[in-house]
Amino acid sequence: MAKPNKNTGPGTRPEARLPKGFRDTPADELRETGRMLAKIRAVYESYGFEPLETPAIEYTDALGKFLPDQDRPNEGVFSFQDEDDQWLSLRYDLTAPLARYVAENFDRLPKPFRRYQAGPVWRNEKPGPGRFRQFTQFDADTVGTDNIAADAEICMLAADTMEALGITRGDYVIKVNNRKVLDGVMEAIGIADEPQKLTVLRAIDKLDRLGVDGVRQLLGRGRKDESGDFTKGADLAEAQITVVISYITTSVAQSKPTAIVTHVDKSRVLKPLHETESYLKGLSELRALQELIDGAGYLDGRVRIDQTVVRGLEYYTGPVFEAEITIPVVNEDGQTVRFGSVGGGGRYDGLVERFTGQKVPATGFSIGVSRLQAALAALNKDEPAPADGPVVVLVMDKAELPRYQRMAQTLRGAGIRAEMYLGTAGMKAQMKYADKRGAPCVVIQGGDERAKGEVQIKDLIEGAKAAATIKDSKEWREGRPAQFSVPEADLVAAVRDVLARHKG
Amino acid sequence: MAKPNKNTGPGTRPEARLPKGFRDTPADELRETGRMLAKIRAVYESYGFEPLETPAIEYTDALGKFLPDQDRPNEGVFSFQDEDDQWLSLRYDLTAPLARYVAENFDRLPKPFRRYQAGPVWRNEKPGPGRFRQFTQFDADTVGTDNIAADAEICMLAADTMEALGITRGDYVIKVNNRKVLDGVMEAIGIADEPQKLTVLRAIDKLDRLGVDGVRQLLGRGRKDESGDFTKGADLAEAQITVVISYITTSVAQSKPTAIVTHVDKSRVLKPLHETESYLKGLSELRALQELIDGAGYLDGRVRIDQTVVRGLEYYTGPVFEAEITIPVVNEDGQTVRFGSVGGGGRYDGLVERFTGQKVPATGFSIGVSRLQAALAALNKDEPAPADGPVVVLVMDKAELPRYQRMAQTLRGAGIRAEMYLGTAGMKAQMKYADKRGAPCVVIQGGDERAKGEVQIKDLIEGAKAAATIKDSKEWREGRPAQFSVPEADLVAAVRDVLARHKG
Repeated sequence: MAKPNKNTGPGTRPEARLPKGFRDTPADELRETGRMLAKIRAVYESYGFEPLETPAIEYTDALGKFLPDQDRPNEGVFSFQDEDDQWLSLRYDLTAPLARYVAENFDRLPKPFRRYQAGPVWRNEKPGPGRFRQFTQFDADTVGTDNIAADAEICMLAADTMEALGITRGDYVIKVNNRKVLDGVMEAIGIADEPQKLTVLRAIDKLDRLGVDGVRQLLGRGRKDESGDFTKGADLAEAQITVVISYITTSVAQSKPTAIVTHVDKSRVLKPLHETESYLKGLSELRALQELIDGAGYLDGRVRIDQTVVRGLEYYTGPVFEAEITIPVVNEDGQTVRFGSVGGGGRYDGLVERFTGQKVPATGFSIGVSRLQAALAALNKDEPAPADGPVVVLVMDKAELPRYQRMAQTLRGAGIRAEMYLGTAGMKAQMKYADKRGAPCVVIQGGDERAKGEVQIKDLIEGAKAAATIKDSKEWREGRPAQFSVPEADLVAAVRDVLARHKG
Repeated sequence: MAKPNKNTGPGTRPEARLPKGFRDTPADELRETGRMLAKIRAVYESYGFEPLETPAIEYTDALGKFLPDQDRPNEGVFSFQDEDDQWLSLRYDLTAPLARYVAENFDRLPKPFRRYQAGPVWRNEKPGPGRFRQFTQFDADTVGTDNIAADAEICMLAADTMEALGITRGDYVIKVNNRKVLDGVMEAIGIADEPQKLTVLRAIDKLDRLGVDGVRQLLGRGRKDESGDFTKGADLAEAQITVVISYITTSVAQSKPTAIVTHVDKSRVLKPLHETESYLKGLSELRALQELIDGAGYLDGRVRIDQTVVRGLEYYTGPVFEAEITIPVVNEDGQTVRFGSVGGGGRYDGLVERFTGQKVPATGFSIGVSRLQAALAALNKDEPAPADGPVVVLVMDKAELPRYQRMAQTLRGAGIRAEMYLGTAGMKAQMKYADKRGAPCVVIQGGDERAKGEVQIKDLIEGAKAAATIKDSKEWREGRPAQFSVPEADLVAAVRDVLARHKG
């Protein structure tokens, strides 16, 4: 039974709050996001990807979010029933809706079909620090070709995107693996049980964070972390563990593909890795991919083969990619670690087939937008935020509102962000308001100035600087006056001067 | 009881389809939307509004979407319960979340607080032609001031937005009314019953579409439309109807505010309109607003006082605005009508008070994005869509993939949208693909060209033109060859030439 809701009765006052795991995004962050998305979009467009927007709501079955033998959707998605009792869900990623779209419109699409989409997705999961229940993804996918060149292109696209965002080569890397290679490892150590496989793969995935010993523990009985929490392991035998550790610690083909074949110490392998079909197939795909990336000149550190890359393995069927920021950051436990993944993807040849029964191979890449934004913030943390508030025209005399309004209009007409103060408070509150808005300057016209046909301009940035350097303030102010009068006709020019002072 | 879902059992294949009332947005439309939103954003920014983004999901009670005495949310919103059984809903507009945001963050916000937000909203309503269950709104609001200058500014903002979008003055108008004036009319004819009030207001709202006779029917017993459907009326007495009709047909204060007072024929009024408190208050506000708008020079046809404007009256408390496109269009019934409303808004002084008990006056404006986009399409229907597909590098020899890939890279490096064909089909299918993509040209290099260090460029737009003008095609082709060879080193220059041919 549903409990009665708090705060819902008629007549009672609701509390102004957001559900856990949701957040409001403030202006500075949004502007930053907007600039970032525009740069990503420009790269995706340059590669010939076309925008597409699917709605937030899909049929739950189209998203593949019914659990076997259950009549209710998976708990991880937000779901509700429409008027004819069909289940609807909010999308939890942009890939499942793309598969639905392609299946629905297959005949009229150019093949291959290349689209990008940026938008929010929703997860009905327990929120945590930095883990929200609504977040934005930015995806690019190529659907309808099994050509490995499509995968190579995705890697190049990812690298070009990082560079377009101003991330220095070396501060990021696009890591590539192949899911079939990992399947070969499973086959070699004789694991067919899906949950156990997943535990092994998740252990491999943690190499960067926990190191070899941590992975070894997670492959065995389990691992106790600093806080004392215990994570149950995969319960592998020692011989199996040795194979997996050997696989992840022996460098594979960083430059020459042939090196990949022999990296496992054969004596310990339950079934020799290079005799498993998946491994060989994966290896040959990885080699072909490497050759194409090398041909394009991207094996210079931008893209790297890395056999420890695992990634969301539910639907990937071949190459998998991960975009990693390699700069050191300090984590919650005070340890210095690499910043880590800001996006990833891979080949998923089965998703459209779910609908049509026809195989439609596909590959793609997804950026976690706020994760990438956090990385950019960490990379650029010394850069000052630009002062981009509007010029505020103060209201000194309410009878003259139209006059102040026209000043604001004149400034806007000249391409300057400007507003007339719209509250009803006095001078002091208006100055405080202008400060809070990050206004570069305010425009003041009282009765005296009006009589003389003048306006006063008060430079707030200069004023703040002068206040900060009290010793030389007199001198400073004389050199660059923080407040001065000009004829009303020179308003635009005078404000432009002030703005120019603080540019760059 | 919930019916078992179709297509949901494990093992059965789901159908690829969207729920009714939802749609996918294709590339051309998205690009158009993007350009439009950027122009609107620039105007809002120039006025000093700051971006804010609230999440899609809010507590249902925070949105005010519980019906009195009911424990379930209003049917008009998409709702679901979170893990502790609290009701959550998808936002149905951007104003209710803004009120929640302001109430939650009141102390630290600059006052007045000016924000804009663009984003999707969801309505759990019956979809119809052009009526979707997800659509985008673009709002600007000023919260925390009862200064009428804030309302005047909203009108100017709306007009500036229309002009920034290239809508000719005269093809649009911002119409202004005051909700209190309408309250005065209700008081004058002695109607206090809320549902009846709403029926009267809805009747007034239809003047543009149905004319005076249609409104008269809707104020009386009701109206039968062309299809034979009957809409029940407000059941007013003849004397009451006469007052309302007199109110909507007598021109009010288009230039001189004093004219408003005397426009109702006093002999028929149950209570003289100009003796009702609401009417006088509304009138005085309208007059103050008109003065400010006039002072800014916007009463030149951009903004107009129009006493028939009603707008979503649930929460408006003072001035109401409507942005109307006045160009004639042919409706579904074959009648020529004005295009109509693309946005609107008004003053809502009670929304934040719901949470805090404290009065926080506010005013704002909301654009219906797809409605406005439809208006722009109707206004610009003769303009050709730009050819903005990518240059496609054909794959003539699979062993040379890296070479073709480098050509695409070289073009991209020069700022040209380009892609290598990523499918596995032959020449004919590749040409068809390039056509479908809207490629301006393709780049071809077979074995012969490679041996000579050349590439062929095939101009698809010129080719199509030549095919369309068969008579002069030989001549045409000689003058502007649709296919030609250049040294591989001149690839960028040659493609640029082709693109330059088709610019503008």
